[in-house]
Amino acid sequence: MINKEEIKSWFMSLQDEICASLEALDGEGIFREDLWQRHGGGGGRSRAISGRKIEKGGVNFSAVEGTLPDKIKAKLELENADFFATGVSIVLHPHNPHVPIIHMNVRYFEADGGKYWFGGGIDLTPHYIVEEEAQFFHQSLKDVCDASDKSYYPKFKKWADDYFYIKHRNETRGIGGIFFDRLNSSTSEGKQAYWEFVQRVGEAFIPIYSHFIEINGDKEYTQQQKEWQFHRRSRYVEFNLVWDAGTKFGLETGGRTESILMSMPPLAKWEYNKIVDSKSEEGQTLHQLKKGIDWV
Amino acid sequence: MINKEEIKSWFMSLQDEICASLEALDGEGIFREDLWQRHGGGGGRSRAISGRKIEKGGVNFSAVEGTLPDKIKAKLELENADFFATGVSIVLHPHNPHVPIIHMNVRYFEADGGKYWFGGGIDLTPHYIVEEEAQFFHQSLKDVCDASDKSYYPKFKKWADDYFYIKHRNETRGIGGIFFDRLNSSTSEGKQAYWEFVQRVGEAFIPIYSHFIEINGDKEYTQQQKEWQFHRRSRYVEFNLVWDAGTKFGLETGGRTESILMSMPPLAKWEYNKIVDSKSEEGQTLHQLKKGIDWV
Repeated sequence: MINKEEIKSWFMSLQDEICASLEALDGEGIFREDLWQRHGGGGGRSRAISGRKIEKGGVNFSAVEGTLPDKIKAKLELENADFFATGVSIVLHPHNPHVPIIHMNVRYFEADGGKYWFGGGIDLTPHYIVEEEAQFFHQSLKDVCDASDKSYYPKFKKWADDYFYIKHRNETRGIGGIFFDRLNSSTSEGKQAYWEFVQRVGEAFIPIYSHFIEINGDKEYTQQQKEWQFHRRSRYVEFNLVWDAGTKFGLETGGRTESILMSMPPLAKWEYNKIVDSKSEEGQTLHQLKKGIDWV
Repeated sequence: MINKEEIKSWFMSLQDEICASLEALDGEGIFREDLWQRHGGGGGRSRAISGRKIEKGGVNFSAVEGTLPDKIKAKLELENADFFATGVSIVLHPHNPHVPIIHMNVRYFEADGGKYWFGGGIDLTPHYIVEEEAQFFHQSLKDVCDASDKSYYPKFKKWADDYFYIKHRNETRGIGGIFFDRLNSSTSEGKQAYWEFVQRVGEAFIPIYSHFIEINGDKEYTQQQKEWQFHRRSRYVEFNLVWDAGTKFGLETGGRTESILMSMPPLAKWEYNKIVDSKSEEGQTLHQLKKGIDWV
């Protein structure tokens, strides 16, 4: 049966491969690495890039272990407080407003006594929603899911719609994607199947993001479109700081702040009560920031 | 005994006076007003400005009433769910990085059965901390407090230090100020005294802020100093969205989002793991973002 050390090394290799591919895609930026250690045990490799196409990006690996605080132990319904958690997290903010913000995460959690689960997902936040692009994105994720289990895509797509939701704006963060958590099985085959699924998700990241950089990375844009990007980024900040369970958990339990907040955008702008013409491209995008759209 | 209607009209006049003074100070910007009504009862007057000296500012008045959700009723330890709440809230983000961000709030809450309390405060977030300016600010607040009760300043100054604290950065939001909540008394004289204190706080706002605009509103600054302002504003965002109880409460209970988030800055920038020379002016400011500094 696959064990935590094997999962950890696969995640480390995934981080390496993704960073190498992103440097090639960007053509200029080089990842800067920070190694960090966690007080209670374990640590991570945070890698940040600021290049020609990626304005600000982070590709982080971590593998931490130790004892969970009582409050979290209770929340996770665990009997034992000893845990191990490893994962890769990515957020990329592009220069070009026609390239979407992308987020990917794959993770594995294990507690003493054999309890474990996998979690993760990929979701997209286009500054401008273009139907074919949204369709490509969701079809790619559906293919990844279907290769494992036909029931995954509809379930994990809905999960993403519900998770990446900015309640106080009554809008989704972007066009969603897939989100899953607490995937666990009582059999060795079941665990292996989940692990293969998580690997497929991790491997899907580069082909998907390359597509967006390739089609729009060099597209012309106006200052007004850049302003719109700053505006949409403010909503990204609001989601991450107000609603994202992972960010809140990290900040409240004393995780490495700079790694947790690598998801924050380079420049974001808040304008009071911004009026958007509903017939404009921007207005059309706002109109599609809702749950339950069947993009495939 | 002072009643809620008198408090409400005084707060409305305070908003009017402050807006008129700020327009005069700015010399160009004019407040734009949005009237809004709350579903459950009451409403507000949100006023926003974007001018020559104030890059983005909000001066909001509200008076809401109705029935509290059970969860909040329990949290506030109230027997009856009928409530009335009124207040004035201000946040100003200046163009000039040498002018501080300022925040002021005065509020009154009343529940059926005679339970009530006052709350509020003023706090300052300079992009660059200058000792004489910090001293002026705290001395002004101490004078306001001392006119009511000599015990207030030390108590409310410490409360602000503890409240305006960004735990995940291990730094205060700025140089603090005063913060108080749940001020209530069993006697009519006691209520009157608290009310006079709250009025003094409200009236202190313009003289204090005028000083900063007058001494630094036209001071020259570099692009690098503007960049530093964007950076410091990112911390302001983090405090408000992650730790500010008022913002969280508002967003979670379905308050008017645009009024609650009028505190957000016009432009903010996140840079991964920003390195600041501890000997620079910026580094000196960071060094003073801590609790317990006796500015007076």
